[in-house]
Amino acid sequence: MYSFKDDYSEGAHPRILNALIETNLKQVTGYGEDEYSLEAIQLIKRKMNSPQVHVHLMCGGTQTNLTVISAFLRPHEAAVAANSGHILVHETGAIEGTGHKVLACEVKDGKLTPEDIHAVLEAHTDEHMVKPKLVYISNPTEIGSIYIKSELEALSRFCQENKLFLYVDGARLGSALCSDENDLELSDLPRLVDAFYIGGTKNGALLGEALVICRDSLNEDFRYHIKQKGGLLAKGRVLGLQFLELFKDNLYFELAKHANEMAGLLKTELERAGFGFFTHSPSNQIFPILPDKLIAKLRENYEFYTWAKMDDTHSAIRLVTSWATEKEAVLGFCQDLQNYCKD
Amino acid sequence: MYSFKDDYSEGAHPRILNALIETNLKQVTGYGEDEYSLEAIQLIKRKMNSPQVHVHLMCGGTQTNLTVISAFLRPHEAAVAANSGHILVHETGAIEGTGHKVLACEVKDGKLTPEDIHAVLEAHTDEHMVKPKLVYISNPTEIGSIYIKSELEALSRFCQENKLFLYVDGARLGSALCSDENDLELSDLPRLVDAFYIGGTKNGALLGEALVICRDSLNEDFRYHIKQKGGLLAKGRVLGLQFLELFKDNLYFELAKHANEMAGLLKTELERAGFGFFTHSPSNQIFPILPDKLIAKLRENYEFYTWAKMDDTHSAIRLVTSWATEKEAVLGFCQDLQNYCKD
Amino acid sequence: MYSFKDDYSEGAHPRILNALIETNLKQVTGYGEDEYSLEAIQLIKRKMNSPQVHVHLMCGGTQTNLTVISAFLRPHEAAVAANSGHILVHETGAIEGTGHKVLACEVKDGKLTPEDIHAVLEAHTDEHMVKPKLVYISNPTEIGSIYIKSELEALSRFCQENKLFLYVDGARLGSALCSDENDLELSDLPRLVDAFYIGGTKNGALLGEALVICRDSLNEDFRYHIKQKGGLLAKGRVLGLQFLELFKDNLYFELAKHANEMAGLLKTELERAGFGFFTHSPSNQIFPILPDKLIAKLRENYEFYTWAKMDDTHSAIRLVTSWATEKEAVLGFCQDLQNYCKD
Amino acid sequence: MYSFKDDYSEGAHPRILNALIETNLKQVTGYGEDEYSLEAIQLIKRKMNSPQVHVHLMCGGTQTNLTVISAFLRPHEAAVAANSGHILVHETGAIEGTGHKVLACEVKDGKLTPEDIHAVLEAHTDEHMVKPKLVYISNPTEIGSIYIKSELEALSRFCQENKLFLYVDGARLGSALCSDENDLELSDLPRLVDAFYIGGTKNGALLGEALVICRDSLNEDFRYHIKQKGGLLAKGRVLGLQFLELFKDNLYFELAKHANEMAGLLKTELERAGFGFFTHSPSNQIFPILPDKLIAKLRENYEFYTWAKMDDTHSAIRLVTSWATEKEAVLGFCQDLQNYCKD
Repeated sequence: MYSFKDDYSEGAHPRILNALIETNLKQVTGYGEDEYSLEAIQLIKRKMNSPQVHVHLMCGGTQTNLTVISAFLRPHEAAVAANSGHILVHETGAIEGTGHKVLACEVKDGKLTPEDIHAVLEAHTDEHMVKPKLVYISNPTEIGSIYIKSELEALSRFCQENKLFLYVDGARLGSALCSDENDLELSDLPRLVDAFYIGGTKNGALLGEALVICRDSLNEDFRYHIKQKGGLLAKGRVLGLQFLELFKDNLYFELAKHANEMAGLLKTELERAGFGFFTHSPSNQIFPILPDKLIAKLRENYEFYTWAKMDDTHSAIRLVTSWATEKEAVLGFCQDLQNYCKD
Repeated sequence: MYSFKDDYSEGAHPRILNALIETNLKQVTGYGEDEYSLEAIQLIKRKMNSPQVHVHLMCGGTQTNLTVISAFLRPHEAAVAANSGHILVHETGAIEGTGHKVLACEVKDGKLTPEDIHAVLEAHTDEHMVKPKLVYISNPTEIGSIYIKSELEALSRFCQENKLFLYVDGARLGSALCSDENDLELSDLPRLVDAFYIGGTKNGALLGEALVICRDSLNEDFRYHIKQKGGLLAKGRVLGLQFLELFKDNLYFELAKHANEMAGLLKTELERAGFGFFTHSPSNQIFPILPDKLIAKLRENYEFYTWAKMDDTHSAIRLVTSWATEKEAVLGFCQDLQNYCKD
Repeated sequence: MYSFKDDYSEGAHPRILNALIETNLKQVTGYGEDEYSLEAIQLIKRKMNSPQVHVHLMCGGTQTNLTVISAFLRPHEAAVAANSGHILVHETGAIEGTGHKVLACEVKDGKLTPEDIHAVLEAHTDEHMVKPKLVYISNPTEIGSIYIKSELEALSRFCQENKLFLYVDGARLGSALCSDENDLELSDLPRLVDAFYIGGTKNGALLGEALVICRDSLNEDFRYHIKQKGGLLAKGRVLGLQFLELFKDNLYFELAKHANEMAGLLKTELERAGFGFFTHSPSNQIFPILPDKLIAKLRENYEFYTWAKMDDTHSAIRLVTSWATEKEAVLGFCQDLQNYCKD
Repeated sequence: MYSFKDDYSEGAHPRILNALIETNLKQVTGYGEDEYSLEAIQLIKRKMNSPQVHVHLMCGGTQTNLTVISAFLRPHEAAVAANSGHILVHETGAIEGTGHKVLACEVKDGKLTPEDIHAVLEAHTDEHMVKPKLVYISNPTEIGSIYIKSELEALSRFCQENKLFLYVDGARLGSALCSDENDLELSDLPRLVDAFYIGGTKNGALLGEALVICRDSLNEDFRYHIKQKGGLLAKGRVLGLQFLELFKDNLYFELAKHANEMAGLLKTELERAGFGFFTHSPSNQIFPILPDKLIAKLRENYEFYTWAKMDDTHSAIRLVTSWATEKEAVLGFCQDLQNYCKD
C-alpha cells in the first residue's frame, strides 16, 4: 500500500535529522534566539535579496495564519479569501476565534482577482459591516493552481491602492515556485506582498514555516503575538536547524522540484490514458477524474482522497506527491493504471 | 562557559533522535492519528493505570495552557493562580487573549492552598464579577517547590466541593515526581485532578507535552480546540515518537532523576559552603543567595539568571539542571565555588 | 418630507413616556432588579403561558445577539444563518468578534429550511472545521418574509434531532405575529425554540428587547454574560417600565398591527397600480419594484432606501412602516403615486 | 425608607423627560446621526473649547470602557489600573473578555501615580509578558477620591513620555469637577488625556455616557467598534436629547453640585458627631466609620452599603448622594444620627 494522500506522511529529509543529531548537545539560547535560528533567518533573507524584511520561524500553518491575521488587523477589520481558502474552511474557525470575520469570494480555480476583492469592498461601505482589510491567498491554492507574476502584481497593485494588506499562505510555496508554469522568484515576493510564509512542514521539515513580514510597521512587537498565541518554542533550535539545512544550499527547491516531477509523471500518464482533470494544477497536487470502478481498483494498492463526485460513475480524486515520494511508487502507479485500463 | 540558565538549552535525548531516524520514511496518517502517537497514548495511560483518561500530544506549554483553559471555561469564568503562576505573568496574556481573567493569589512559596482559593471565592459573589472556575497550579511551581500528596488531596477535595476544575501545569512534572520529597505517583493524578500535562520539552524531548484530561465531559470535542488554536501538527508523529521513547521504559523518569541529582549536588555544595536559599526547592531549580562579588566571579565561567536582589551586597541566583546537565560541569562549578570562597 | 426609511425614526409610544414620568422619582434597585423589570418579566411570561422560561431585558438587537450566541456556544461551535441574516452582514462582525464563525446558507426568501441546515451539517464533519451548533433565524426575516407554524415546527424538529440550538431574532417579532399570514402564537415559541427575543426598539419602545431563554441550562449564569458584554443598564427601570407598558394590555400587538396595516395600505395601492414586488413580505416592510423615474419623483416628498437595481430602468425600494406611521402620510403617498402614474 | 445606596436609584432629571416628550414624534435619522445627537456633540465640544476632539454618545460605563480599550489596544497590550479600578473588579472581566489583561497596582486611596505605573513598566520587559499600553483611571475614583490638576498633569506627562494612552472613566466626572477640592476644568481634560467619558447615567440621565476621544488616530473607525460591541442604539436620539438638555446650559454641573452638597451636609454632621472616615472623599460618596449598633439603627430608615468591617464593633458604610437626593432626607438622616448618638 502506498499513499498519495498528502505531503506530510513521512518524516523529514535525512539531512535535517543529521543536523539535529550533530548539534544536539550544544547549549544555545531558547525561544528562537539561538544561533541556528538567527543564521537561518539571515540565509532566507539573502536568498530573497531582501535584507530589510523580518523573518520568524513558526510551528505550523494554522498557527502562522492566526498569529499574522490577529496581529495585523484591528477588531473590526476582516480578511478576504477565496471560497476554497484554507482559513475559511479548514482551520476550525481559527481566524474567527481571534475575533475576525473571513469574507468569502466565490471563485472557480482557487485564485482571487482584483475584481473579486473589488466586489467585496463595494459591498462593505459603512460601520454596520466589517471593514475588509487583509487579502489572504495561497500559492499554490488549495486546489493546486498557482499565481503567475502578472496576476500577483495585479493583486499587489490593487491592494496598495485600496490600503489592503496582501498575505500569502505558502504552505506549499516551494511547489508553486518550482512549477513549470511559474514565473515568480522568491525574491519577487517581498516587493509584491506584505507578508507570506515559506512552508517547511510540507517540503522536507518535521515541522516549521518561515514567516516573512515585509513591512517594518507590521512587524512591530510581532514576537509578543507569537508568544501569546502559543507559537514560541522553548527549543527554537528545532526550527532554526531545519531551515538552515533547507536554505544553506538549494535543498528546499530541489525537494519541491522532486515533488512536482513526481506529480508530472502521474499527470502525463493519466493524460496519456485519456483522463481529464477537475482543475488545472501545475504543482504537487493533481485531481484526475476517473471511473469509480477504476478508483476502486486503485484503492487496492494506493491511498488517496476522493475529492468530488462528478457524475454517477465518475469522481475526481486527489493525488499528492512530496519530496519523499518514491519514483518507483509513481512508476508502479502508472503501470497499474495501464494494466487496469487494458482490462 | 557552561549554562545553568534553563532546562531547554540542549536538543533531545539521543534515543529520541534515533527513533525519528529509524521511522523516518514510513508513511503514516497525519494530525496525531498516526500509529506512534496512538501507541504513545496507550503507553502513558498504562503507566498511570488509567485506561479511562484522554491523552493529547501538544506542542508546548503555553499552547497547552491556553487550549485547555479556553476549552474548559465559559466566557464569564476565570482561572485562579498563584501570583508567581506562569499563566499570570509569563505567557504574554495568552489566557486573557482567549477572553478569560486570571485571578492572582498572593502566596510566598509558589503553592496554592484551599484557604487561598476560598478567599477568592468569597470575594467573587455576583454577576458584576467574574466567576472563579478553574484552579491552575504548577508542579513543581515556578520557584521549584513541589506539592506533596496531602496538599494535592486537600486542593482536590476543595475543588470538588466547590465545583472548580483543578488543572496542573506539569512543564517539569518529571522533576516533581522524582524529587526526594515527593510522595505522589503519576497514577495518583487522574484521581485527584481534572487535567494535567506531562512536560516533554524540559525533560528530554525536542518539543511536546502530553496533556491528560481525566473527565469525559471535559474532553468532548477537544481536538477541535487544538486545531482552532493552531496546535495540531500535520506531522503528529514527531510528538508520538518522542513520547513513545520516553515512556516505553522508564526513560522519562530516569532523565528527571538525573536533573534532580545534579541540582542536589549543587545544593549540597552551596549548603556546605554556608549559603542560604531564596526558597525551598527540592526539584531541578535552586535559588542560592550569594554575595554579588562571588556571583560576578561565577559568571566568568557559568551562565545563569539573577533571580532577585536580596540586599546591597547579595542576590539570589537561579541554577537549573536538566537531563542533559553534565556531572563534570556540576563538579567543576562546585570546585570553582570552593576556590572562590577560599580567596 | 415623510420618511418610510425605517421603524425607528420616532421616539416611543406616549404611554411609555408617561410611565417614565409617573415613576421617575421613585427609588428602586439598580441593574434590572427593580420592581418594574420584575413585573414586566412576569407579565411577559404570563402572555406566553410559560412560567418556566427566563426573561432578560436587553438594550438592543446586536447586543442581544452577541450575548446570546457567545453565552450558548463553546469556542469551536458556529452559528448557521441565511445569507441575508442580520448577524452575517449587518452587525460589523459582532458574532465573530466573540470568536464564533457564522456559516451562511444561500437562500432566496430570507428563510432557512431543514434542508439548508442539513447541507451545512454534511459539509462540517471533523475537527478541521467548525461545528455548527446554533441556528439563527429572524422572524420576520430581513426581507420581510415570515415563518408559518409548520415551517418553524419543521426547523424545531430538525434542530432537536441534530442537537442544534434554535434562536429567533425577533427585532420585529410583533409584526410577524400580527401578519395576516401568521398562524403562530407568542405562546408557541417557548415550545419550539431555545431562545428568542421580543423586539421593543422597533415597536414602540425607546430602546429594549425582551430576551426569552426557554431552557434552564442555557440560562445558567446568563446575567454574568449580559454584564460582561456591557449590556446591563444601571437604571434597568428604563427597560422594565417600557415592557410593562407594552405588555400590561395588548399595546405591543396593537402597535404592530398598526404598522402592518399601514404597510398593507401601501401594498394594496402599489398592486392596484400594477407594480410587482422584490419579495413576498406580509409584514411591515415592503419592497415594490418601480420605474427609476417614479422613484425619483417619490423622493421629492418621501424618504426610503433603494434596495436593489432590477434592470436599467427599474429598482426595488424598501418602504417601512411602524407603530408611529401616520395614516395621512400613507394616504398621501398613495395619492401621490396615483398622480405620478397618471402623468 | 430612604436610599443612599447609589446614584442611580431614580429616573432622569425632569427636563430630560420633557425633552423626550416634546420631540417624540419628530422623524430623525437613526444610529446616532440624528440632529439632537449631532447638536449635543457640538455643545459638549464647545463647553470644552475643544473643536478638534471626537465625541460619541454611548449607552453605559462598562460598554464604553470595553469598547475604548479594545479599540485602542493591539492584542498583546494591556491596561494598567488601581487595584480598586472598576474594570479590574466590577465589570465581570469585560476587558479580558475582549482579550486584554488588566494589570493591577496596589494603591491606598484609589489613585494611580507615575511611580505606580513606572513599577509596572519595569516589571514588563519582554515578549514573554504583556505590554502595558493604556492607563485607566477614574475621576472620582471608586472610593470617592479625586485627582487634582497637578496629579493629572504628572500622569499625563508620564504617559506621554512612555507612549502610554491615558484614559479617564468619568462615570461620576461631574461630581469630581464640582468638588470643593477640584482645580480642574472640563476644558483641561482634552489637553491632558487621550480619552475620557462624561458620565450621564449617574448624573441625571436615564442612561448614557459622552465619550471624548482627544486624538484623531484613536478615533479612526471608532463607530465600527461601537457597532461591533453592541453599543450603537437604533434610536440614538435617546442619548442625544439627554446630553443636549444636560449641556445646553449648566444643568450637568448644577446636578453634580447638588449631589456634592448633599454629601457635604452628611459629612459635616458625621464629623460634628465625632466620626472618622475610611477614606478622604470630597465627592458624592462618603465612607464614615460607625459603631455597628448605630449602623443597625440607621438601617431601620435608610438603605446603604456596608463597605468594610473595621474592627469587632465598627464598620465603614458607604453613603451616596445624587442630583435627585432630597435635602429633607439628608436633614432627616442628620437628625436621626443626632438622636441615636444621644441615646
